[in-house]
Amino acid sequence: MNYPNGKRNNTYNKANNKISHGNRGQTLEKSIDLTNRYYINENIAIIHKKPTPIQIVDVHYPSRDKATIKEAYFKVPSTTDYNGIYKGKYIDFEAKETRNKTSFPFINIHPHQVNHMKQCYEHDGIVFLIIKFTLHDEIFFIPFDFFNNYWTNYMNGGRKSIPYKEIKLHCPLIKESINPRINYIQVINEIYSL
Amino acid sequence: MNYPNGKRNNTYNKANNKISHGNRGQTLEKSIDLTNRYYINENIAIIHKKPTPIQIVDVHYPSRDKATIKEAYFKVPSTTDYNGIYKGKYIDFEAKETRNKTSFPFINIHPHQVNHMKQCYEHDGIVFLIIKFTLHDEIFFIPFDFFNNYWTNYMNGGRKSIPYKEIKLHCPLIKESINPRINYIQVINEIYSL
Repeated sequence: MNYPNGKRNNTYNKANNKISHGNRGQTLEKSIDLTNRYYINENIAIIHKKPTPIQIVDVHYPSRDKATIKEAYFKVPSTTDYNGIYKGKYIDFEAKETRNKTSFPFINIHPHQVNHMKQCYEHDGIVFLIIKFTLHDEIFFIPFDFFNNYWTNYMNGGRKSIPYKEIKLHCPLIKESINPRINYIQVINEIYSL
Repeated sequence: MNYPNGKRNNTYNKANNKISHGNRGQTLEKSIDLTNRYYINENIAIIHKKPTPIQIVDVHYPSRDKATIKEAYFKVPSTTDYNGIYKGKYIDFEAKETRNKTSFPFINIHPHQVNHMKQCYEHDGIVFLIIKFTLHDEIFFIPFDFFNNYWTNYMNGGRKSIPYKEIKLHCPLIKESINPRINYIQVINEIYSL
């Protein structure tokens, strides 16, 4: 919706973006879940989100069948959130949302995850990130090699983020629709000529 | 160790196999974890165990950084436990131990898991099961198509298990050693000529 003064509908955006730190990424995650379900139902690709890694400390057994976890902690993930198969190829990706307007900060990416992506990339997997700039309402497909140039520089003491402008210039936008929500397979088809 | 009466060292075996229902599979799981770590360290294959799927009901935040899960339940897995990449190919498998001597019963396999394996198989993944017959001390590589013949028959009201004899006759034994513990990649190389 456009307003006479040329500004975008900020009130609407703000209401939708009022999500706590803990929920950050939930919207994108939900969209990707729906997309993956669509791909499976249409027999296009078999890609799943991995369960959240948990360290279980205490389990009770109130009945034979029903184990109740009474104490557990979130673990730092050692791999990415999503992987699977498309046209015989191994697919591996991580998805992140940011409310930053000018760059994607590395703060939410764990070095273990980047290491995992690098390994999969070197073993000829299709590896990438899906990054949503919430305030621009844009979702980008970030090929791993593009990401890794900035990450390597960061590891060597360089910049702690990837400029939005560079992403906008070099990385494909992912088309959003009703179904599939976020058609990242279409981008894979184009980049890898599948 | 062999005894004069020709029997195997049963006391030793019994002591080692005295594992509760809840722990069943732990020994095989541990061996596969060590094997996967070896494959990663040697840069042979990138294969990980997925985290156990958990339904989280209640989380406390005693401090900003330390979330404590206070109530959660185990969910029925919708995929297999292991997947990853080897020589550019998608790998997907499930691992099970049984103390049954004459057959592998389907009781511990969820239909969702078989459905997932079937999908990955049809999308040209390398899909299989690793089955350990604890009392025979043998670990077999069960290609998905072999498994699926028996499963399909079971789904149509047939036999609820795969006979040990048939497995022994048609499926490769996985070689055990110190490192890698369970060399299932070697079997993949032979079957798929990689």
